Amino acid sequence: MLAKELIGVCAGILTASSLVPQFIKSLKEKKVDGVTPFLFIVLLAGNGLWMYYGILLKDIPIIATNSFSIIMDVAMLILKFRYRKK
Amino acid sequence: MLAKELIGVCAGILTASSLVPQFIKSLKEKKVDGVTPFLFIVLLAGNGLWMYYGILLKDIPIIATNSFSIIMDVAMLILKFRYRKK
Repeated sequence: MLAKELIGVCAGILTASSLVPQFIKSLKEKKVDGVTPFLFIVLLAGNGLWMYYGILLKDIPIIATNSFSIIMDVAMLILKFRYRKK
Repeated sequence: MLAKELIGVCAGILTASSLVPQFIKSLKEKKVDGVTPFLFIVLLAGNGLWMYYGILLKDIPIIATNSFSIIMDVAMLILKFRYRKK
């Protein structure tokens, strides 16, 4: 792996891993407050476009990071609806 | 601007703009809860590496997006310490 790619992969691991604590917290507390579904949809669109951009550039770090981010966005959206106040 | 770059810029605007609501909310409510300083430092490191990666690739969308993200991370860290419970 090129040094450049290694930097991209490390960057991706750091930024992607920062999504995990909030997900675990929401799972434990069975609530997703402080963030609107709209925000997750904006993030989903952004990460989706970044993934497409990564595919155009054939750039593994960008594709891998944003695939993981998309999974986290969808998971948070599911929790948001599952734990919404009825 | 190449179509590819336009996609990257749009992706960047979407993901970067998703940071703004939380910042405004923290400013209004004068508190930054649910996120640890450690998380912002991880994000700062990740965005810093992404920016370095963008510089290596000479990739404007990656550089621009992560510069904005770094500013937001630092701003949130400042709010986190300013509004911490004494």
